[in-house]
Amino acid sequence: MQLLPPALISLIEAFGNLPGVGPRTAERYAYFLLKAEPAVSHELYSSIEKMRDGVGYCQKTFALVEKGKEISDLYTDPGRDKTLIAVVAEPFDIVAIEKTSQYKGTYHVLGGLVSPIDGITPEQLHIKQLIHRIDEDKVQEVILATNASVEGESTALYIQQQIGKRKVKVTRLARGLPVGVDLEYADQITLGRALEGRTVL
Amino acid sequence: MQLLPPALISLIEAFGNLPGVGPRTAERYAYFLLKAEPAVSHELYSSIEKMRDGVGYCQKTFALVEKGKEISDLYTDPGRDKTLIAVVAEPFDIVAIEKTSQYKGTYHVLGGLVSPIDGITPEQLHIKQLIHRIDEDKVQEVILATNASVEGESTALYIQQQIGKRKVKVTRLARGLPVGVDLEYADQITLGRALEGRTVL
Repeated sequence: MQLLPPALISLIEAFGNLPGVGPRTAERYAYFLLKAEPAVSHELYSSIEKMRDGVGYCQKTFALVEKGKEISDLYTDPGRDKTLIAVVAEPFDIVAIEKTSQYKGTYHVLGGLVSPIDGITPEQLHIKQLIHRIDEDKVQEVILATNASVEGESTALYIQQQIGKRKVKVTRLARGLPVGVDLEYADQITLGRALEGRTVL
Repeated sequence: MQLLPPALISLIEAFGNLPGVGPRTAERYAYFLLKAEPAVSHELYSSIEKMRDGVGYCQKTFALVEKGKEISDLYTDPGRDKTLIAVVAEPFDIVAIEKTSQYKGTYHVLGGLVSPIDGITPEQLHIKQLIHRIDEDKVQEVILATNASVEGESTALYIQQQIGKRKVKVTRLARGLPVGVDLEYADQITLGRALEGRTVL
């Protein structure tokens, strides 16, 4: 007995491929599109269809750019300090840093973090290109803006080794108490890092 | 300055229309599709595109059926008792009831619940068609399987009034303690209903 039409079952299965979407959520999305105005589902499927042809990677920084554009605005903009590079794991990390409005350097997207469990080796990341940029742009400082995770830390360590004896300052983001979080609720490691990195008032 | 390519921003906005999807989740879905195999996004957009042309409504029960099929299998199947109708708000409620494997009657989908706040009047629901079925199929029992919410209860009451003096048993789903839930954690109203509806051992 057919409880649901095959076209709807296919759609529920397709939504189920998205990260964190279980069968109930997928059903909810599918039923929403079925009941919504045709324009809503048209907008969704046409933007999925067009996305792949509209998105490319910057050849310098590996940030996401409009297809056809070789280099990201974040690199070509004359207001950007090319001797300062923030190294991030994924393209969306750039959006997070830009929101602070406190950074005027350029970026370099690694395309992931070294993770033996997931089979990601340093060779798969854009580390060689980073070293090339350091030499080419006479970079003064590299900020390793990777996550405070095991993968983030070991990727940072690997990059530091690759930079070697080049005359460039290598820094990383401060670890410490997040703003607005009570000291008593901070985990031991964070609090330990906050103690280590204490600053003079 | 363009932080993200327009094609990706459009997709993030389109995902943001789905129920319960905020900007961060939409970004996560979009970035997943960008990194996934092309087949994954093809499956999703083509199933959204095809869905509307593949799904119709049963002319009897208003359940979801394959386009072109007039009447749902759940009605035409000879094993189904046409004199017993479970009235549900939405098509997916049928799936939930079918999973119990305890029901052998037919269904009637209202297409919503009476809700003055959302501007849903009884005339917009398939209530007239239900009354017609009751007369035509010589229905013995109508189970009002609507939610235990204000809208569900008031819709049930309205249907009961419309059925009027017809010789048909009108029942509703039992309210009481969900299986596996501790009595002390049940809310007052549920516990009150469980007391009211207590059964003889």
